[in-house]
Amino acid sequence: MDRHSRLAAALRGEPVDRPPVWFMRQAGRYMAEYRAIRERVSFLELCHDPALACEVTCQPVDRFGVDAAIVFSDILTIPEAMGCPVEFHPGRGPVLPEPIRTAADVERLVDPDIGSALPWVPETLRLFRAARPEVPILGFAGAPFTLLCYMVEGGGSKNWLALKQLLFQSPEVAQALLGRLADAVGAYLQAQVDAGAAAVQMFDTWAGILSPEDWRRFALPAAQRALSHVSGAPRIYFTRDSSPFLRMLPETGADVIGLDWRVDIAEAREVLGGMPVQGNMDPVALYAPPAEVRRRVHAICDAAGPRGHVFNLGHGVLPTTPLEGVEAMIAAVKERSG
Amino acid sequence: MDRHSRLAAALRGEPVDRPPVWFMRQAGRYMAEYRAIRERVSFLELCHDPALACEVTCQPVDRFGVDAAIVFSDILTIPEAMGCPVEFHPGRGPVLPEPIRTAADVERLVDPDIGSALPWVPETLRLFRAARPEVPILGFAGAPFTLLCYMVEGGGSKNWLALKQLLFQSPEVAQALLGRLADAVGAYLQAQVDAGAAAVQMFDTWAGILSPEDWRRFALPAAQRALSHVSGAPRIYFTRDSSPFLRMLPETGADVIGLDWRVDIAEAREVLGGMPVQGNMDPVALYAPPAEVRRRVHAICDAAGPRGHVFNLGHGVLPTTPLEGVEAMIAAVKERSG
Repeated sequence: MDRHSRLAAALRGEPVDRPPVWFMRQAGRYMAEYRAIRERVSFLELCHDPALACEVTCQPVDRFGVDAAIVFSDILTIPEAMGCPVEFHPGRGPVLPEPIRTAADVERLVDPDIGSALPWVPETLRLFRAARPEVPILGFAGAPFTLLCYMVEGGGSKNWLALKQLLFQSPEVAQALLGRLADAVGAYLQAQVDAGAAAVQMFDTWAGILSPEDWRRFALPAAQRALSHVSGAPRIYFTRDSSPFLRMLPETGADVIGLDWRVDIAEAREVLGGMPVQGNMDPVALYAPPAEVRRRVHAICDAAGPRGHVFNLGHGVLPTTPLEGVEAMIAAVKERSG
Repeated sequence: MDRHSRLAAALRGEPVDRPPVWFMRQAGRYMAEYRAIRERVSFLELCHDPALACEVTCQPVDRFGVDAAIVFSDILTIPEAMGCPVEFHPGRGPVLPEPIRTAADVERLVDPDIGSALPWVPETLRLFRAARPEVPILGFAGAPFTLLCYMVEGGGSKNWLALKQLLFQSPEVAQALLGRLADAVGAYLQAQVDAGAAAVQMFDTWAGILSPEDWRRFALPAAQRALSHVSGAPRIYFTRDSSPFLRMLPETGADVIGLDWRVDIAEAREVLGGMPVQGNMDPVALYAPPAEVRRRVHAICDAAGPRGHVFNLGHGVLPTTPLEGVEAMIAAVKERSG
């Protein structure tokens, strides 16, 4: 099978010759080619330069022969487009210096025309399709709840105290912003499908800080609303903590569930009723000796079954990951048969 | 019912007049009485002074009328007693400046005689029982895997890279240390039972960083071994991420499962086959208005059912928690009937 048909079939749960493989943050710091480019430009400059972003997107495709690319960008493009500035400082997570805490803060935000406010990612998708027509490329966006986390807290957090105070003290303010975020995320994902994305993934990285009741109240309706705006390509919903919500994940309306590594993939497939899944090796397992990486890849593929499984890590690859681990992982997936 | 019989019955799954309530880190910074003492002594000085530790242990009992105390101490007493120093700096997590990374590091550690190496907690338990004979008191310890996390990483971590490199590259070194930690933890918990603890809780705070396969390989056998050394009082196993391991948690050999807030307590009870549970309100929900706190307490108690449930938070109370939230939580539990 060619890479387009392999990925498309796996995402639809149809027979494949072997599972396709790509991995989250596959274009990144663990690659010397990437670090060389980042010596010349900042992270944001790279996100805002489609030619360079395309070059970086191609790097893991060219080096490892993965089955799909994912467009190089960041999940915090939408808050920025809505008028909530985002800063990236080396060695720290993102910082949002003007966090959203009140109804007045929410009202000051704008609802951007996505096409004109965020032109870079669709353009990068078009450049990649011209450069590597044989390779499918995924688009992505942050999920509304995860964007809310950053916008309210002003960055990453251990306890997400400011965010949860808003949720628990002024739920209507949080809901209003979640609704606006959902519409922007949906439009942004659709723009990526229109630019030729073979699939789109919505990252709800921080959904797992919520109790199941609060996930159902805040994260789920916003995810549903965002995904309801998207058609024409498979839609993947990923959260870093899928276990607590496993039974409810199909309610997002996603076509495919991206699983983190803290869930048994066989159990997940059983609970999800055969829905296609993506995942789910611990990114740190790539530091293991190659034989152990190989063992883990086969264990995951055996547990997932031959259909409806896209091999991936359970979270983004880490900046110091050894290339031998990545190579062993990809080689092991390529040993599989359908 | 008196507080002793209420806690004992709930931990055994027997009928109660209402669920007992205590909460993790209930003696702590959110109380002015505690902060007043910490202005005079450091955290470690407090842990090593049984009279003062007893005074602090009494504070939430006296102010809120909770149904049980938990002895004031820290989970990192055992690494220190084994020869791995621990430092506490204001505003940071614990720091272990001599992390354990190799087989030689493990061999240099000592296996302490728990009674002489860690006399403070049993002595605090005895003082508390004399001071507040009407109130049951829990003992506790860190679980072997969670202690391993701190000892190898040298403190808290986002990705636990050093720890997981040891697990995945030198599993036999990790297993050797886990076994020694399990024996020390078991002896320490038994010493607390012998000093009159009404129950003991083992905190496996960081178990949730592992995949289910790795939890079964590393955290579970060590937890089993530690708990196998303890008899004479109910043994509670708590992890901050119970969802991924829910089906396997009874295999720890614990009598009661402490649940974090990212799990539906009704679903947990179903999966655990009626095992008694403890938990599980989001600590940040205590910042909600009192009526919302009350609603959440009743929702949890309704879902948990009247028997075999000890009300608690799903993780430790936060330092800035408003007292009104705590008061509303406790008042709501006291409205329940059996």
